[in-house]
Amino acid sequence: MNITARSGRRPGKSETRTQILESARRAFSRNGFRQATIRSIALDAEVDPALIHHYFGSKEQLFTAAIALPLDPRIVLAPVQASTNEQLGATLLTAVIGVWESEHRDAVLAAFRSAISGDGSQLIQSFLLNIVLRDIIPRVDTPPGSGLLRAELVASQIAGLLMTRYILELDPLKSLSVDALIPLVAPNLQRYLTGELPI
Amino acid sequence: MNITARSGRRPGKSETRTQILESARRAFSRNGFRQATIRSIALDAEVDPALIHHYFGSKEQLFTAAIALPLDPRIVLAPVQASTNEQLGATLLTAVIGVWESEHRDAVLAAFRSAISGDGSQLIQSFLLNIVLRDIIPRVDTPPGSGLLRAELVASQIAGLLMTRYILELDPLKSLSVDALIPLVAPNLQRYLTGELPI
Repeated sequence: MNITARSGRRPGKSETRTQILESARRAFSRNGFRQATIRSIALDAEVDPALIHHYFGSKEQLFTAAIALPLDPRIVLAPVQASTNEQLGATLLTAVIGVWESEHRDAVLAAFRSAISGDGSQLIQSFLLNIVLRDIIPRVDTPPGSGLLRAELVASQIAGLLMTRYILELDPLKSLSVDALIPLVAPNLQRYLTGELPI
Repeated sequence: MNITARSGRRPGKSETRTQILESARRAFSRNGFRQATIRSIALDAEVDPALIHHYFGSKEQLFTAAIALPLDPRIVLAPVQASTNEQLGATLLTAVIGVWESEHRDAVLAAFRSAISGDGSQLIQSFLLNIVLRDIIPRVDTPPGSGLLRAELVASQIAGLLMTRYILELDPLKSLSVDALIPLVAPNLQRYLTGELPI
């Protein structure tokens, strides 16, 4: 499709990249990694499929870009790094729910659905353990060697909350305000992080 | 395919139904509700697709039969009904994990994947709230009206544990014995069920 003719100018490279990423997030969110195609994303973004490959490489690289760009873990997790260990559960939950309640929810759901379908398992596992939970693990490693398991238990509660509140949309869970939700769930995360566990 | 010629007799109706359900569970588990087809299930079960429609009706009815049959909630949940409220978290978790660790894991994962993809959301929601958690809700309804939310919080932890242990296969979480896992997670369920929550 000739965008130049419509807009009177050729769109810039960064504008085109942004458009492709938006279309990719929408497609991955709706259809999951396997069923979304470069062709359909190209159609939605009004670009040639070859341009997507030129900018992003493979479908998996496009997916990584689509889920990674909007989240910017350094910014999202800054409050977590600044938090005391005693506030870690509430701070982490607040940061994560902040993303889910933002305009980036589609990207998160896309990543989540792909993880479930099995296609994105490795991707999500890397993202969870190497980015989101990486800095937390050494901080909660008491007794030594327990930090990773504590972080994975936290991941289990967070993943399940995402599923029941935003995908299954169980009511009244889905209707709770963020302010009401945090004190319900954060103490459970805190137990996993710093509680005395039979490990 | 002519089974009669191979086995020397025509298989009984219940034998054929069992074979179809096994094939259906396998297909739904591997491919999810949308991608699994009656045609491929019929091929795997070595029957005519029309026979599947004759026995089970629609693909959704087949799915219901495939996920509902092996679990038999009355038997699985009998210990939960017999449990005191103080032991509810551990008893429920033990019952649920017992199913996941049994030969019925494929059926559970099939239901779970379909719920995530969006196709089976209503089905899973009904199954969770009307079967698994139905008897629990009135027992934990303190203060009055809080029982359903408590049950949904329980569902959030259980769903996330299923995802991280059996689908993402986070290690060491996936390697823990059931006996090690229960005391790690059950107290968190117990807090949701009978703890003092800011509701």
